[in-house]
Amino acid sequence: MSAPAASPLGLLLSDQVDGAYGARLDAVAAERGVALRRLPLSQAAGTLDQIDLAFFSRDLYEGSSLRKPGVLSDLFFRVADAAPRLRWLHVFSSGVDLPQYGPALQRGVRVTGSTGVTAIPIAQSAVAAILAQSRGFDHWLAAQARREWAPLTGAQRPRELQQLRVVVVGAGAIGSEIGRLLKALGLHVTVVRRSATPTPPFDRTIALAQLDEVLGSCDWLVLAVPLTEATKGLLDARRLALLPPSARIANVGRGELVDEQALCDALQAGRLRGAYLDTFVEEPLPQRSPLWELPNVWITPHNCAASQGHEERVVGSFIENFRRWLG
Amino acid sequence: MSAPAASPLGLLLSDQVDGAYGARLDAVAAERGVALRRLPLSQAAGTLDQIDLAFFSRDLYEGSSLRKPGVLSDLFFRVADAAPRLRWLHVFSSGVDLPQYGPALQRGVRVTGSTGVTAIPIAQSAVAAILAQSRGFDHWLAAQARREWAPLTGAQRPRELQQLRVVVVGAGAIGSEIGRLLKALGLHVTVVRRSATPTPPFDRTIALAQLDEVLGSCDWLVLAVPLTEATKGLLDARRLALLPPSARIANVGRGELVDEQALCDALQAGRLRGAYLDTFVEEPLPQRSPLWELPNVWITPHNCAASQGHEERVVGSFIENFRRWLG
Repeated sequence: MSAPAASPLGLLLSDQVDGAYGARLDAVAAERGVALRRLPLSQAAGTLDQIDLAFFSRDLYEGSSLRKPGVLSDLFFRVADAAPRLRWLHVFSSGVDLPQYGPALQRGVRVTGSTGVTAIPIAQSAVAAILAQSRGFDHWLAAQARREWAPLTGAQRPRELQQLRVVVVGAGAIGSEIGRLLKALGLHVTVVRRSATPTPPFDRTIALAQLDEVLGSCDWLVLAVPLTEATKGLLDARRLALLPPSARIANVGRGELVDEQALCDALQAGRLRGAYLDTFVEEPLPQRSPLWELPNVWITPHNCAASQGHEERVVGSFIENFRRWLG
Repeated sequence: MSAPAASPLGLLLSDQVDGAYGARLDAVAAERGVALRRLPLSQAAGTLDQIDLAFFSRDLYEGSSLRKPGVLSDLFFRVADAAPRLRWLHVFSSGVDLPQYGPALQRGVRVTGSTGVTAIPIAQSAVAAILAQSRGFDHWLAAQARREWAPLTGAQRPRELQQLRVVVVGAGAIGSEIGRLLKALGLHVTVVRRSATPTPPFDRTIALAQLDEVLGSCDWLVLAVPLTEATKGLLDARRLALLPPSARIANVGRGELVDEQALCDALQAGRLRGAYLDTFVEEPLPQRSPLWELPNVWITPHNCAASQGHEERVVGSFIENFRRWLG
């Protein structure tokens, strides 16, 4: 990244981050001999032409959903998008594909994401769901809701975890952490990435072009890739049909990776055993969606990254990028 | 164990185990120069005086609960308890405390359990529940049941998994495996056992007498001990009050380890965050029990050991003991 020309350097940030991390940010700038002018959002309206960089931290996203920005998010981008000198925007999300970032990207502002920051909690959520459904909690919790004492017996009993084959699509920070945890729990893990270069500690690495070959023996298909033209609709009706009826899927990427209607059809028809979904084509998931009540479907509200340590990690990611940007 | 006097040696077993493993059992006896007379339950009524040993395998327990034996269990023990020569009874359960075993124990029959056979699936179930509730699935799944898109935000968000302190009471096969898996997932694990001898890979080992000291900083208290006079009522109202309101408990031991009424009171009053329970004072859990519907309580029907590989492991345990018994 290019070194900054202006000094003092104007940083648009949330009042919360300003209060909690202001001194730390000043120190980072001072290390590089740069004076930082912090511009907290509540006071930024009159200082548009002083803004050189902007930090869209997680607290500004509270109350927002993927397609419906909340009040703070809205205010932040009204300021940032009107700041004539803005050159760099760092955002809390790992992807830079939120609609809010569109205007900045379109006018040539550099937009960087907090890559990897959410990988650990997202992976933990995915693994929790995979482990719990594989052990039978989908059945047990549904029975509990009916006050029913319904042990899994005979052929209903869960298969041995050690025999389950998981295919993780995506070997970025999230996919790698999911694979690492599942290996630690004793499952068989195949990772799908651009090239088939072996990737320890996984049992097998294949290229995306080979995905169809492994679907037939897959117990869990985990989607942990960003949304791109190449991944949109990755899990379509044809690939869903290649999975055995005992398979489950987990999607912690983006809703559009999956043909949601085809997924509903497969689940309703018993051609797929279950699903754990954190992302959806439309968010919040509409009331009318059959996914809410399909058996063996667990839904989390695009929230599987939630964790108390998130701000700390996002600020850390911004600071790391800020240092690099300062040169 | 003592070497057998009789040859042929009469073994009471289920028809299913006889069909699937008969040849393997014959081979084990032949290795030791002993002729085995297999007496499948369906034909055993007329052969009572030929029975030297008996194998109560898992298939004979189907349809039974802790205090209500099913038809096959009932038949098996009517035969076994009337067999005058019976010297040894091997059972599928790890504990030898099921009421069905009482008459055999009372008349001096040696009763051995399939120790450790269920440890792996039980530990996996416990860890699944601990991981899933710690990540927020108790909240998310309850919201899903109301078709509610309810992300965890702000202070509601889960704490970092890496910061959670788990206290596992019991360092037998189950407790050790729970601890091992939780360590692999990055949690802090204290193991409570008879002596405080350090037990890798756990962070800390304490003696039962020190339990009260660690309850105040405990996020999950996991009960994985057998029921004995020393452990009965281990988690009573006094100890429940020592746990912080943010703590949860998991019980995969026996219902009587916990004062169930005090547990309900603590959960209802918000003095305890949640619970995962597989065992109960009365089983099946009565319809009237408030546990069914308390928030953040997950119930499995004394079934958390369920797994397809169970028979195979139980038969393996019997064969191992059988070899030793044959000398």
